[in-house]
Formats: sequence, C-alpha cells, structure tokens
Amino acid sequence: MGYQSRNVLITGGLGFIGSNLALRAAALGARVTVVDSSIEGCGANLHNLHPALDRIRLIPLDIAQAAEFAAEIGKADVIFNLAGEISHWHSMQFPERDLEINTFSQLRFLNVCREAAPGVRIIYAGTRQIYGVPQYLPVDEEHPIHPVDFNGVHKYAATMYHLMLTRAGYLDAAVLRLTNVYGPRMALHIPSQGFLSTYLRRIILGQPLEVFGDGAQLRDVVYVDDVVEAFLLAGDCPKLHSHTYNVGGPQPLPISEIATTCARTAGGVPVTFRPFPDELKRIDIGSYYTDWRRIRTELGWQPRIGLEEGLRRSVEYFRRELQHYLKVAPEIEAATHSGPPLSQSALPQ
Amino acid sequence: MGYQSRNVLITGGLGFIGSNLALRAAALGARVTVVDSSIEGCGANLHNLHPALDRIRLIPLDIAQAAEFAAEIGKADVIFNLAGEISHWHSMQFPERDLEINTFSQLRFLNVCREAAPGVRIIYAGTRQIYGVPQYLPVDEEHPIHPVDFNGVHKYAATMYHLMLTRAGYLDAAVLRLTNVYGPRMALHIPSQGFLSTYLRRIILGQPLEVFGDGAQLRDVVYVDDVVEAFLLAGDCPKLHSHTYNVGGPQPLPISEIATTCARTAGGVPVTFRPFPDELKRIDIGSYYTDWRRIRTELGWQPRIGLEEGLRRSVEYFRRELQHYLKVAPEIEAATHSGPPLSQSALPQ
Repeated sequence: MGYQSRNVLITGGLGFIGSNLALRAAALGARVTVVDSSIEGCGANLHNLHPALDRIRLIPLDIAQAAEFAAEIGKADVIFNLAGEISHWHSMQFPERDLEINTFSQLRFLNVCREAAPGVRIIYAGTRQIYGVPQYLPVDEEHPIHPVDFNGVHKYAATMYHLMLTRAGYLDAAVLRLTNVYGPRMALHIPSQGFLSTYLRRIILGQPLEVFGDGAQLRDVVYVDDVVEAFLLAGDCPKLHSHTYNVGGPQPLPISEIATTCARTAGGVPVTFRPFPDELKRIDIGSYYTDWRRIRTELGWQPRIGLEEGLRRSVEYFRRELQHYLKVAPEIEAATHSGPPLSQSALPQ
Repeated sequence: MGYQSRNVLITGGLGFIGSNLALRAAALGARVTVVDSSIEGCGANLHNLHPALDRIRLIPLDIAQAAEFAAEIGKADVIFNLAGEISHWHSMQFPERDLEINTFSQLRFLNVCREAAPGVRIIYAGTRQIYGVPQYLPVDEEHPIHPVDFNGVHKYAATMYHLMLTRAGYLDAAVLRLTNVYGPRMALHIPSQGFLSTYLRRIILGQPLEVFGDGAQLRDVVYVDDVVEAFLLAGDCPKLHSHTYNVGGPQPLPISEIATTCARTAGGVPVTFRPFPDELKRIDIGSYYTDWRRIRTELGWQPRIGLEEGLRRSVEYFRRELQHYLKVAPEIEAATHSGPPLSQSALPQ
C-alpha cells in the first residue's frame, strides 16, 4: 500500500487499535503523528508505541483542542479517527462524560478538519454496537440503528457528523463499524472493555473464566491486525464507493467456544457457567455476526487471522509485556467498585 | 380524549407548536405546566399563551435544569417534549450551540425524567429533516436516516435517547417526525424557520414572495392544529404499538403552488421566481412528502385542515396579533446580517 512518506494523523493513537495502526503505518514508511489526551478509562497507554516512540510524533492533546494543532491537521494526507470511549457501563453511569468524549469532541475536531484540510480522507472507528439487537443475521450495513446504551447513541452521532459533512462536500470520510476486536495492546487493565478483554486478562493471570448463560450466543471476533489492514485499505483507496463498511471476523463462534479456546490457549484455566445476571439481560443482544461482503468487494479486505492464532499471538504479547497492562487507574477502580462487580465487565457486548 | 384533570408537562411550551398544544390541552381540562427558557432564536413568545396565561403554570427554566423541577416531572401524567432549536442555518453557523440545545439538554432532561417519573409517557417532537434527500416517496418511518445538517444530527441523537431509554424500560416514549408545520403562533420574527414562516411574514407585510428555481419540489405542509391532535392522541393512547410516527400533511403540493396560494390568501402579493442560489443547492433535498399511514392505522390520526383553510386562519391570526410577531431579537438579527441575506430563510427546508 502507498503509505511511504505519507503524513498520517491518528487520533486515539495511544489506545488499543490506534497504536497497532500507528506502528503498522510507521513500518510502512508513513510519517505518523498520534493525537491522544490519555483520558482515564479510554485505554491510552504510552507503552503501546514503545517499539517506535522515536519515529512517531505524539501530540498530547484532546481532539476537542484541535484548533491548537490545526497546522498538523492541514498537513495530513489521511486521518484515522479512533479517539473515544467504548465502555457501555461507563456511558450509562456517566452519560454526559460520554457525550463530551464521543460526540462534542468529535464535533469540534471535524469542524477544524474541514477548515484546515478541506476534503481530507478520514476513517472513523465506528462500532457494531449501534445496530443493537440484530433483526437478522449476518448484519449488513443497511441494518436499522438501535443502540442499546448512551455510548451507542453518541458514537452514532459522531458517525452522522462524518457522513453528513461528507455528503455536504466538506470531508471525504468513511466509517468502519467494528465487531469485537482483540489482540496485543488491548487495555486489559480497564474494566468494561468487553468480554474479550476480561477473558484475556483472566487467562494471563491464570484465573477461571465465567460464561453467562449457556454461552450459545454467536460472536465473530476479529484480530486487531486484520482491523488495522481495513483502516489502511480504506485510507489508501483512491475513491471510496461507500462511506460505511462493516468489519467482521472470520467466522461466528459461540461465546462458550471462544471461552474454552481462550482457556486452552493459556494452558488451561477452568471455564464456569453461571446464570445470566438479571441486570445484564436488559442489554443482552443475543447473537451477532457481521456481513462484511461490502468491504471485501469494494476494498479487497478480508479477515485472515483465525481465533487460535490470534489468541496465541495475544497471549505471547501479554505474557512478555504484562507489567504494562495491569495497573487499574484509581478513578476507574473507584467507579467500578461503586458500580457492579468486576465480572460485569465480562458482559458479552 | 381523556385530558380532563390530567397533569401535562410541555417543554418548549412558549414556542410555536408547544403553545398551540398547551392551549388545546388546557381547553380539554388538563392541568398544564409549561417549561421554557426562552432561548433567543428558539421561538419562545409569552404572548403565545396569552388567552390562558391564568390557567397555565410557567416554569422559566431550561430543560437542562430539570433537576430543579424534578418534582413537577414526577407529577406529570404525560410529557410533551418540544424544547429545541429548528434552524438549519443556525446549526451550521453555531454547531456547538445546537448540540447543547438539542442534544445535551435533552440528555440531562431525560435522565431526570427516568429517575423522577420512571416509565412516563413522553412524546418528542422530531423532524422529517433527519431523512435527508428522499430515496423514495412518500417517505415512511423505515426510510434511512441521512441528516443534511448539524440540526438533523442533533435532533436524531435526541430521538435515539428517547427510543433507547424506552427499549431499556426506563421511559415510554414516542417520536413524532413532523413535516413542515405552519399556523398561528409561528415565530415569524425569527429568520431561518423554514420557507413557510418566511412566506407568512411576507404576505402579512404585503411583501412579494420569492421562489427558488421553478418551485416544482413537493411539500406536504400541515396545519398546526392537526399536529397538536397527533401529540394529544399519542400522549393519550393506552399502549403505543410503535415508537416512531411520521406526521404529514393532507397532500403534496409544489412549492410554487404553496407560494401562489399564500399570495392569494393575503389578497394578492407578487410571486417572483429566481434561480436557485448555489450555496443552497448543496442542501436542497428535492421533493418530500410523508407516508403517514402508520399513525392513521395505529392512532386514528389524519390531517384535516387543507392549505387554503389553514392559511386563512393563519393570516387572520397574524393580522390581529401582528405587533407580537415582528420584533427580531438583536442577537438573531446580528447573526443573520453576518450570515446570508435574509432571503436565505426562504430555503425550502
């Protein structure tokens, strides 16, 4: 792909997916600038960029402060926009915080982008969570939007900003709606990042895994390198035919099988099944898997890493780097302790 | 309908539709409380409630201050939620203001509602503008959501709050997506309220009407009393079968015919046609009219007032009350003068 010597700006570039993308873009020869304000709970971790800190420029600002780095935006050939907060639970506890992080900051950022870099290509990290309970499977891009929490509402508002400003000719944006992503640099130390984060943390620590209900709900989890490839393809494509692309995993698997595969990969920890907690039933979406034929057809993308291989690489990474992924920020810990038990974070989002 | 002695709370109740609704509910015997912060540019006009000011309680607060009137919310049997800003042009000039008024304030308000009045019936004033350029006609409730401006994004975010909190069991909300509404108590003194407001102001003042292009685009304008009836039916229905209802007019008419009917009703002012300004083409949506079969089937509603009769009543009202609808607030005037010419407000939204 043509990233050699191109100026790439990545918001949320200290986070899980953003940092993997930054490292890959740098390896392809891009001049990478990362913007990240390291808001507590959003997954920023300076260690994520460790292998290439000397080659990646870091702007430690919030995207809401975009006016302060408008010159950098003006130089960008492509912008990967991954700044945000993904936690369901946080958004329900602190909805105004979630509005500020996921919507207001994006509004301010995009308004600077359209001034400083009219028509710039922006690839935004959306989420399959906005679809809510699937009305049919697999879920394609035309599926109705029925978010189940404030996070979904706010991420979708930001999605609409991108698409509206593109229709109006101010930007050239596309939104990737991501299914559950896992891999190296996940924020294992932050609760409520989805069940894969919880499972990875627990197998690394040798703790048993919990599955709610019978674990028959399907998920098509996807390895982070595949997601990075989707961003790079969308950022590099000369002309986008669509502006919304689902990004899914190689195959739907029951959560019970994902759990047992996790346990096996780590050398064997127990997997226990417990009844679905009442307070989680309200937001359980049942089975979900992705129809990702559009991005395959239009951008030539497909997921290449299977679950066993992805988990093997993840476990290898986290065993090596464990000390950088275990510290729970005090603010987050307090919020978690005043909220539901930690196992809440094993919600099969 | 069963509004006798019921507690009805109306947000934005000093505005155009809200005040008509408040007067009608009061006439039906309801105990009406109006919440309105009279934000400049949103159409609040104390004179709107003049006929019943002694029987309607006014809380002069913003809905974002809902915690201060939580006790009133707790007493409400039904809430009609019409607070907001409708101007396309304002939202593009001041998008953060629009986010605050149309999204943030709603978030705060609804979070107080679900605490103070769990499961309460709320009828929210949505807009057909969120559909954007129609992909088919007439437009039903399943039409894709493609807002053309920040106002549409923010109104749709508020829509999603209502629907998400209803799906999660916290509220019992429904959204009415309104086509272009006209009638007594329109904010004629505020620019950028849609072409009907501009036309009404101009015919009352004996000024010529301007039509952009050939005026062949269709609109199904609806008289405010019909819209009030839709709110009352939705608020009173024992069990809502749906949570989104389109509210449209009795028939699609070309804008040119709406203009000539306006001119004729006022005793004859000239109607001139001018080329569509370039800066407006970007957001012109072409023809729009509503498929309102769902609300007819489920709630028994249909529009009853034709254009000639509705205009006749409107002109009669505004000729009598003209002095209360001509003062342009200084802030608005300044914003308008720094923006496009006043004829901008004749945009066929």
